[in-house]
Amino acid sequence: MAAPRAWAVVAGVGPGTGASVARKFAQSYSVALLARKAENYEPVVNEINNGGGQAIGISTDVADENSVKNAFKVLQEHLGQGKLAAAIFNVGGKFVRKGFMELSLEDFESGWEANGRGAFLFSQAALPLLQDAVAASNHPPTLIFTSATAAMKGSARCAAFATGKFAMRALAQSLAREFGPAGIHVNHAIIDGVIDIERTKHYQFDHEDAKIKPEAIADTYWWIHTQPRTCFTNEIDIRPYVEKW
Amino acid sequence: MAAPRAWAVVAGVGPGTGASVARKFAQSYSVALLARKAENYEPVVNEINNGGGQAIGISTDVADENSVKNAFKVLQEHLGQGKLAAAIFNVGGKFVRKGFMELSLEDFESGWEANGRGAFLFSQAALPLLQDAVAASNHPPTLIFTSATAAMKGSARCAAFATGKFAMRALAQSLAREFGPAGIHVNHAIIDGVIDIERTKHYQFDHEDAKIKPEAIADTYWWIHTQPRTCFTNEIDIRPYVEKW
Amino acid sequence: MAAPRAWAVVAGVGPGTGASVARKFAQSYSVALLARKAENYEPVVNEINNGGGQAIGISTDVADENSVKNAFKVLQEHLGQGKLAAAIFNVGGKFVRKGFMELSLEDFESGWEANGRGAFLFSQAALPLLQDAVAASNHPPTLIFTSATAAMKGSARCAAFATGKFAMRALAQSLAREFGPAGIHVNHAIIDGVIDIERTKHYQFDHEDAKIKPEAIADTYWWIHTQPRTCFTNEIDIRPYVEKW
Amino acid sequence: MAAPRAWAVVAGVGPGTGASVARKFAQSYSVALLARKAENYEPVVNEINNGGGQAIGISTDVADENSVKNAFKVLQEHLGQGKLAAAIFNVGGKFVRKGFMELSLEDFESGWEANGRGAFLFSQAALPLLQDAVAASNHPPTLIFTSATAAMKGSARCAAFATGKFAMRALAQSLAREFGPAGIHVNHAIIDGVIDIERTKHYQFDHEDAKIKPEAIADTYWWIHTQPRTCFTNEIDIRPYVEKW
Repeated sequence: MAAPRAWAVVAGVGPGTGASVARKFAQSYSVALLARKAENYEPVVNEINNGGGQAIGISTDVADENSVKNAFKVLQEHLGQGKLAAAIFNVGGKFVRKGFMELSLEDFESGWEANGRGAFLFSQAALPLLQDAVAASNHPPTLIFTSATAAMKGSARCAAFATGKFAMRALAQSLAREFGPAGIHVNHAIIDGVIDIERTKHYQFDHEDAKIKPEAIADTYWWIHTQPRTCFTNEIDIRPYVEKW
Repeated sequence: MAAPRAWAVVAGVGPGTGASVARKFAQSYSVALLARKAENYEPVVNEINNGGGQAIGISTDVADENSVKNAFKVLQEHLGQGKLAAAIFNVGGKFVRKGFMELSLEDFESGWEANGRGAFLFSQAALPLLQDAVAASNHPPTLIFTSATAAMKGSARCAAFATGKFAMRALAQSLAREFGPAGIHVNHAIIDGVIDIERTKHYQFDHEDAKIKPEAIADTYWWIHTQPRTCFTNEIDIRPYVEKW
Repeated sequence: MAAPRAWAVVAGVGPGTGASVARKFAQSYSVALLARKAENYEPVVNEINNGGGQAIGISTDVADENSVKNAFKVLQEHLGQGKLAAAIFNVGGKFVRKGFMELSLEDFESGWEANGRGAFLFSQAALPLLQDAVAASNHPPTLIFTSATAAMKGSARCAAFATGKFAMRALAQSLAREFGPAGIHVNHAIIDGVIDIERTKHYQFDHEDAKIKPEAIADTYWWIHTQPRTCFTNEIDIRPYVEKW
Repeated sequence: MAAPRAWAVVAGVGPGTGASVARKFAQSYSVALLARKAENYEPVVNEINNGGGQAIGISTDVADENSVKNAFKVLQEHLGQGKLAAAIFNVGGKFVRKGFMELSLEDFESGWEANGRGAFLFSQAALPLLQDAVAASNHPPTLIFTSATAAMKGSARCAAFATGKFAMRALAQSLAREFGPAGIHVNHAIIDGVIDIERTKHYQFDHEDAKIKPEAIADTYWWIHTQPRTCFTNEIDIRPYVEKW
């Protein structure tokens, strides 16, 4: 009898990076896709299931403790004897660009809620499952955080977004140091550039391929996942060849 | 008739750095000391007033929007025609050191509440007053954040504290870039070592002077405040000569 | 008629990383292996040629301008109509660990000679060939520098090694920014840990797999080479799961 | 009988930062000024001596071992029973901005020669004298390196300068870690902006005070020198209020 399929969970699935990551991991694993609204994950869930893969979608607000607990309860019911091999936190949160004095407290905390609290709730739910998969997995169970340039530099008028991403980077480092020795691979992926999705179609650049293809990000995440434990990459930057940095 | 005295406001006044900073700035300015409990600021307020300086204390919870608004309303009543020359955010927050899976959401968010939300509320209340002081001040109006090594490195079991301090660093950078050109000096001060206060008296070191004297931090803050606008320091590290780093 | 085979050149081939990188790239390309002494590259050259690959070895002192020029003259003669798809600079140089006052000028400059001057000479020889390969290559032509933790932190008693590695990182960043827009992928790879080779066999660790397998580094380099130009990684860290950082 | 005067040595004295640093330290110490050409230090030496201070000039090529040894031999003869309280390495070196393929080896190594080899030779000559001053000094003996943004970021077309400054930063960190516990204060000062000197007079900016006053850098260096050993700053950034960073 075949071993039960391993799973990956991806939080933050819309038409961009999340969908591409889901498709890529669905080539090897069953996938659970989390997004606030079903309309965000449904097209990808259907596409994967119709293509011979296995996918489920769970409506989840990652900044809400009960919602995340519920999502992982549903996931565990599906897991059965299977294991969670990978968890990808791909929640961007609202991007607020405003002068500091124009920020409401709600504006300011939106970065934290998605990238701090959300990343915490997701990690705390996923890590016990990832730990449970260490002995059984082909690749070290992996937790990846999609991050941004704003994790490295606090720009003017970006306080809300940068505080959230800086916090996420701190969390990723802390988890890498605590759970690495237990065999779990934690990675903080700095996406430095515009991602080539529907929403950015109108961004014009002087060069071809100046936007990051979400499929290339997905390939990178999969590759990180396959690194053996003698060779973990804990932080990676990704940018188009013409990006200024 | 003499010009009205300039003011400094210090949030986070206990027996350590906050008190020393208050004493130092009180040599030149009137000072407003913010702490959650009156018992924390009262001894310093009395000491300064008895020594010929001018100090007031305001009970404030920096993580509470109304409390901060109220504190600055009280401060403005005292300011009168005076100007706010310096604002020092010295709130450490609870230091939680726990394995990640032992953290409650409340534990985890305590770092953000003090160092993220608290720093935001304090900055948003202080910056209009600092801007109003640019033309009139001897030294560029200054906003200093007391930070820590945890702003640079997310250690294992320190996720709650590190996320807060990383976020504070992002905020400090963003404010420095937005308000520097307006003549306001924003500084992120990384205190890397044990501060020599009552609470750390029992920490034993192999060398003399292995803890940071809070008076030396206060001297450093005052010196940062006196830098002219052609020569701002936006990030500074402070550590004892024997500290490993 | 088949297109002429593409080539990779690897400088710094001994029994460790260099040999593994050579083996990996030899699965797809012809490879030229540079080392000071023929005894360092010969076993790998023979192994690759006997295994159906194509390899040449060229005795080269990377810190010597004429020696590097000669090596690339030999390489170009072999290239013929082929293209140089990848260049890996894997020269460590002497590791000097001494109190600063015990360093001779020669000791101190040994880090620069290998990692600064050597990296410069190698890059200046390789880049025109890599540029010439942009249009014809399956993957963006790639220049990778094997680096170390010492590129990020200058430790006590490691001034000679750290100055060389810091300089190499500066060079890698500068080249990435200048040649990235021309379609060349430049990467600075921070190897943070002990590599598992003959020379480190006696290093004892408390955990299995606590040393980095050179084959895993080679896999990583190959993967970096295959990234498309919409998704370059310019700096990567690599460490075993139990490494302190 | 009065104690013999303490000394400071400044390498790299021209009309800018070096001269201002010399003037500032000459208010408290005798000063030795090193520059390649006498015409660079002579005006400042005369100005200080005519103003009641004590200064000597020594023609020195900091990249030449014998020249540096000779300079410190001359300095020691002047020191007599006096102590060396501070050593400032302010040698910029040639600023080469060229496409990488246009760099000669000589161009490329010019950054290293000034900021790597020069900083090494100066440090190795100064440190024994600074160590000898630890017990007797009012302030911890201090070694300051004037650095630049290029120590933090390798920009395109700046490989020669950036490799030198990265190397200098590595050296400064290594020395801070080795000699800090012996009571010597080592600081790496990142000057991020245009300095306001004769040579930059024609640089136009939209704002007043957009260039860094060399006197303000000198004040900063003096302040660093006066920090007590419980509170060392090992890295400091300095930039004008309107500088982009």
